[in-house]
Amino acid sequence: MYEIKTTDDRLKQSLEPVLAFLKKQKVIDALVKRQHAPRQDLVESLVHRQQLVELAGRLRKLHSADVAYLLEILPPDERLLVWSQIDIEDGGDVLWDVSKPVAEQLIAATGRDRLVAMCRSMNMDELGQIAEHIPDDVMQELLQGMNADNRDWLQSSISYPENSAGYLMSNDFLVVNEDTRVQNLLEELRGHGAFPEQTDKLFVVDRRNRLKGVLPLTDILLSESGQSIGGITRKDAIVFSADDTAHACAQAFERYDLISAPVVDAKGKLIGRLTVDVVMDFVREQAEDALLRQQGLSRNVDLFTPVWNSARERWVWLCINLLTAFVASRVISIFEGTIAQLVALAALMPIVASIGGNSGNQTVALFIRGLALKKITPANVRFLALKEIGVSAVNGVIWGGAIGVVTMLFYRNAALGGVMALATLLNLVVAAVIGIVVPVAMQRAGRDPALGSSVLLTFGTDGMGFLIFLGLASWILI
Amino acid sequence: MYEIKTTDDRLKQSLEPVLAFLKKQKVIDALVKRQHAPRQDLVESLVHRQQLVELAGRLRKLHSADVAYLLEILPPDERLLVWSQIDIEDGGDVLWDVSKPVAEQLIAATGRDRLVAMCRSMNMDELGQIAEHIPDDVMQELLQGMNADNRDWLQSSISYPENSAGYLMSNDFLVVNEDTRVQNLLEELRGHGAFPEQTDKLFVVDRRNRLKGVLPLTDILLSESGQSIGGITRKDAIVFSADDTAHACAQAFERYDLISAPVVDAKGKLIGRLTVDVVMDFVREQAEDALLRQQGLSRNVDLFTPVWNSARERWVWLCINLLTAFVASRVISIFEGTIAQLVALAALMPIVASIGGNSGNQTVALFIRGLALKKITPANVRFLALKEIGVSAVNGVIWGGAIGVVTMLFYRNAALGGVMALATLLNLVVAAVIGIVVPVAMQRAGRDPALGSSVLLTFGTDGMGFLIFLGLASWILI
Repeated sequence: MYEIKTTDDRLKQSLEPVLAFLKKQKVIDALVKRQHAPRQDLVESLVHRQQLVELAGRLRKLHSADVAYLLEILPPDERLLVWSQIDIEDGGDVLWDVSKPVAEQLIAATGRDRLVAMCRSMNMDELGQIAEHIPDDVMQELLQGMNADNRDWLQSSISYPENSAGYLMSNDFLVVNEDTRVQNLLEELRGHGAFPEQTDKLFVVDRRNRLKGVLPLTDILLSESGQSIGGITRKDAIVFSADDTAHACAQAFERYDLISAPVVDAKGKLIGRLTVDVVMDFVREQAEDALLRQQGLSRNVDLFTPVWNSARERWVWLCINLLTAFVASRVISIFEGTIAQLVALAALMPIVASIGGNSGNQTVALFIRGLALKKITPANVRFLALKEIGVSAVNGVIWGGAIGVVTMLFYRNAALGGVMALATLLNLVVAAVIGIVVPVAMQRAGRDPALGSSVLLTFGTDGMGFLIFLGLASWILI
Repeated sequence: MYEIKTTDDRLKQSLEPVLAFLKKQKVIDALVKRQHAPRQDLVESLVHRQQLVELAGRLRKLHSADVAYLLEILPPDERLLVWSQIDIEDGGDVLWDVSKPVAEQLIAATGRDRLVAMCRSMNMDELGQIAEHIPDDVMQELLQGMNADNRDWLQSSISYPENSAGYLMSNDFLVVNEDTRVQNLLEELRGHGAFPEQTDKLFVVDRRNRLKGVLPLTDILLSESGQSIGGITRKDAIVFSADDTAHACAQAFERYDLISAPVVDAKGKLIGRLTVDVVMDFVREQAEDALLRQQGLSRNVDLFTPVWNSARERWVWLCINLLTAFVASRVISIFEGTIAQLVALAALMPIVASIGGNSGNQTVALFIRGLALKKITPANVRFLALKEIGVSAVNGVIWGGAIGVVTMLFYRNAALGGVMALATLLNLVVAAVIGIVVPVAMQRAGRDPALGSSVLLTFGTDGMGFLIFLGLASWILI
């Protein structure tokens, strides 16, 4: 009978036995042992073989997306063991579903013949998207084994830049000629037997393969069998060109609730199809990566990358941070004479820097999001910047005042309290300005507004915070 | 003939004339003037009326999603002016498309009759999702005007918690009884005439409305007219229960590339439908909000919220930051005697704190993302935590060493360089530990792992950085 399955149930039911099986650790131990002690006794080796057969059997019952997820969360040893037991016909789907660094690792660990066989079971668009990780000789062999249409399509699709419509499109779609009648179309479809995934519409072309419009499945269901396709074609379709950025495509998919859409070349010829699953993967990844990019990290992070490689990935921004921190430190050392006279300044100055950093990070987060959603435009950026500075000034008066009073009471020094209050107010305004300028300038320069914004902002709020506070202190207090 | 429209072209073509029209500012001025000087002369008022008619005409040509976008990017005055010229039949779609704070503002500015008329044109699920912002008396009037089915459905849908399947589901879907034949279904569909948006499948039920499975449109196209629906129903469908979290639904939609899926109640009766557009909006919003949540900001931010309200939104985390910064400051003041003897310490200590904060933020970003993608699980968190600490230790040795050498050369003080190096190494390890513990602990406590993590981490890396550096200095140098 019919069984209700929610995601969590589904995942639990399907993944847990595999995880429990792996957890016994015996399988892993056995694999590792077998690699290092090839002459172990026969009985043990038989047990291991049985276990591997059991593992392969369990994996066969999983959806390829679930296998991909399993591979992502397993440490390298277990990951490669599981991968070695995947059926060849499922391997292509899994390779495409995992993240790039994991795909790279799996491909490197796969024998040439097995890899070729797996790639042969992939769709052209899937193959195109992992092509960069496939060794050249394997790719050559694959290309030679293809029919001319697929080869041409794959080669042109690889040539489009990453994150363009041409890169994300698939060649798996249904085309119908505008001169056909509904009846003939239906017969053809029945002969065909299956539809590509995510098919909500057919693409209508003329004899030269130029796109004339789209034909939703729902329209076919509602039409009379004698009608001509040209007569029921929708000509107001949203169409992408292969050069469109993935970002623009994603916005159109979201705004107009698309499921699939045609991609055409410069001459208006139909060359591919974009589908909502691919576009939405892109959207989610982009959005999720903002956190990483803000810290200067690349999105292609595998949690299980070896320690040394992970460490190296972070060097660029750690080094930039070190240089900026050093500059901020030089700012303080200008005022060493002042600090020597009033050591309390050393204890108080990080408060000014810290609240500036916090408030500035709020501004940065709002602006990165506003730019990403295109809610911040050249027409309103001035208005929004002034508003943001106003917000910081209000908070500067309130919280600067609060810090001032606390400082005054704590150190029994009214002038010191006044300096704290004024420095906090000024640094919050400075933080707002930096928090606006950094992402907006990055965006105007054609860069990612989030990239490293956290480090650049902290530099500004630390350096200026120290300068303002110690400068005011040496002017007013000393 | 057929025209190719990419998103950017489309938006440019449709929005720019409206923006240019508004930019003339005359319309706004006129509106504002008219409000404040009701007895202005007749000629001027006629000009204004003409302009408003022109604006309404331009707006009528826009897709409701484009109007919503336009409203989002306009400052309050112009936003309300544009809103006042939207046709009543489009108003419902626009209200549902804008973000919550904007919807709230628009509803507050809409006359009661106009609002009732707009809401009447909305689908039940759209109405359910903005219900919280609609005044109670308007809601009562709407409920009274509905048929019993819609009223019951709306009332139960509102009762589900936000971000559950029941909250996101719609009641706009096609149902077919398992006893029907394909022929009769097709006749029924043709009689019906139109399909709900995002229909890729029909839901098959028995006579008691219990879900039996799904029937993709593609299967209908391929089937013979005499077949019974029960015979071609797919029983292995992915089904959600109304209590499932939106997060779980989103994962299933992404993992299994769903376009629509049925929602059932505890008894297995069909009560609603989830569609990919709604689920993906949720995914994108959630992901994009991580940046904001990390800074303790709410996602329901309208960029044009008045200054005072925006300032207040930020108080909680500014206050927390102030308290933590104050604690860090007290740590420093313990060592005031040490600093008085060697003022260079005051200049160097922010470097230790800053690089700790930077490195810790990288760890936090990785862990928040890993938790969000469910790649970090109880089974692998130990392994990943140890790896992350290893990465920090490696970077601590390398970059701590670099800082140590620079400090030694700069201050011609080998011991000071050694203290810098050691303190940097230790603070990087501390930063990794805090960067792991904060998001993981938040997650285990059932909280959002991103919320305020930036402030909590900085507290740890500042406070511990000062303590380690000044502690080591007073122990070794003084």
